[in-house]
Amino acid sequence: MAVYTDVAIEELVAFLADYDVGSILAMKGIAEGVENSNYLVMTDGGSYILTLYEKRVKEEDLPFFLGLMEHLAARGVPCPTPIRDRKGRALKWLKGKAAALISFLEGVSPGVIEARHCSAVGEALAEMHLKGTDFPMHRPNALGLSSWNTLARQCRARADEVEPGLADEISRELDTLHECWPRGLPCGVIHADLFSDNVFFRGSRLTGLIDFYFACNDLLAYDIAVCLNAWCFTGEARFDVTRGHALIDAYSSRRPLDDAERASLSLLARGAALRFLLTRLYDWLNPVGGAIVTPKDPGEFLRVMRYHRHHPSLEP
Amino acid sequence: MAVYTDVAIEELVAFLADYDVGSILAMKGIAEGVENSNYLVMTDGGSYILTLYEKRVKEEDLPFFLGLMEHLAARGVPCPTPIRDRKGRALKWLKGKAAALISFLEGVSPGVIEARHCSAVGEALAEMHLKGTDFPMHRPNALGLSSWNTLARQCRARADEVEPGLADEISRELDTLHECWPRGLPCGVIHADLFSDNVFFRGSRLTGLIDFYFACNDLLAYDIAVCLNAWCFTGEARFDVTRGHALIDAYSSRRPLDDAERASLSLLARGAALRFLLTRLYDWLNPVGGAIVTPKDPGEFLRVMRYHRHHPSLEP
Repeated sequence: MAVYTDVAIEELVAFLADYDVGSILAMKGIAEGVENSNYLVMTDGGSYILTLYEKRVKEEDLPFFLGLMEHLAARGVPCPTPIRDRKGRALKWLKGKAAALISFLEGVSPGVIEARHCSAVGEALAEMHLKGTDFPMHRPNALGLSSWNTLARQCRARADEVEPGLADEISRELDTLHECWPRGLPCGVIHADLFSDNVFFRGSRLTGLIDFYFACNDLLAYDIAVCLNAWCFTGEARFDVTRGHALIDAYSSRRPLDDAERASLSLLARGAALRFLLTRLYDWLNPVGGAIVTPKDPGEFLRVMRYHRHHPSLEP
Repeated sequence: MAVYTDVAIEELVAFLADYDVGSILAMKGIAEGVENSNYLVMTDGGSYILTLYEKRVKEEDLPFFLGLMEHLAARGVPCPTPIRDRKGRALKWLKGKAAALISFLEGVSPGVIEARHCSAVGEALAEMHLKGTDFPMHRPNALGLSSWNTLARQCRARADEVEPGLADEISRELDTLHECWPRGLPCGVIHADLFSDNVFFRGSRLTGLIDFYFACNDLLAYDIAVCLNAWCFTGEARFDVTRGHALIDAYSSRRPLDDAERASLSLLARGAALRFLLTRLYDWLNPVGGAIVTPKDPGEFLRVMRYHRHHPSLEP
């Protein structure tokens, strides 16, 4: 959400000399994406995003992320596509960081989320899942169910600083989730972080899905669950049924959900809420010295998790 | 250099409804300018900068700043021009902040400064001074000579934390500057902050002067002195004679300097170094809680000030 690595124009000129992208008109550091440095680069040939991958993204995962974007974009999913240089390379180095030039997408993230946005997101998510079917690479979900115990352990000693009893509440959630987590649901490539700041619109038309840096292989329905939490809750952590059904209906119009998937949505959403609660809690308890980004409030997903615990069905 | 005030797309849409600027394609928070929030707004009619004025800019000064940009842009100086809404208003309000939509300028700030950049800056500065002659508004320099005693007093108790003896060194400088400050030199509208991040180039062609939020009426030669410090010193605080002469020669090819101005440049540059030393020292000693911007090292201008004290002529 900020620029961590300064790139001077001379460094950009040298970097772009390998590409056929025209001559530079402007370069602006922009506030976008998760903990990478991003520049909007305008040339006489068009606009591009230059991303420098900061420490949270593992270098060995980049071929998966960039490959996936290229795969999906080639199949008509509105996502950024990595630009290859004259030697065919998409993943490069700049200022000691892995870096990629990617295509620029028009559109803006909605501030006020309406049912029409949720429909569009549901449809685009299903489309992404379908088009990802033949993507040949594989990346386990580093922030999936099996990682939550470790995260919880790292937060346990101080979780109660956020709210008394939180450490025990998390333990009990984990027990339930491990016991009840569905097996045998359809798997595939998921986005895993499709929050509203990662989706662009022009009016009601969805023009872009961005920030694939948590993408991985996991249950497809878990991706829907992440979206339900991100798009269909009010500020008071109440589930907005209209938005929720708009998302689920639009998704299943493209990729029909089977009964087991439908029945699991609430539990998966409870797990997804715990996942974001845990990472936010960790960042909250371990602020980085000199960080530019204010840690997000872990309380939001604590409330969403409790909602799901008390409402074990999201079905119409 | 960051986005302090978040503007949601719905708020931007409502704001732009008063303007004839086309429909929004994209909106990106950008890292630019001094302590204001800036968004790059791309529409199907072109690109614009939306600036929200944060607390360091006084609201009562905005008509001067915006009026000056409009005045200069209309006379061919490559600076942003405020866009007026359908009712003719350039200064507006957004999210409780004064705000203006201004034109977008192509170009990028140089990272490595060469003599050709200094020539272009000298020429553009002279052009700005000439075209500003008939600007009817007036704004005293709030960070001019008369303000430095107050700033020094505010830093005095803790200045020696930066370097032992600094408080006394600043006092002695102030005495000298008050005693020797030139009188009777040509006055006019000056930029007063024309550092390299406020100047855009395409190749060797200067395409933009930005950030007029320190502009004021003061000695024209003082503006040259600010530029000499900003553009013509090496990282080791050594004056680069080639760059310095390129700047002075290009300036005087447009607006010839009289003998008194030439003879005063070194002393004015010593004062300009003290001005930036003092504001940086103040910011260094009084960091704002939760600030997004790292205070700049006051030492840089301390070394430049000392250079001028020991080299009382910048003349070829």
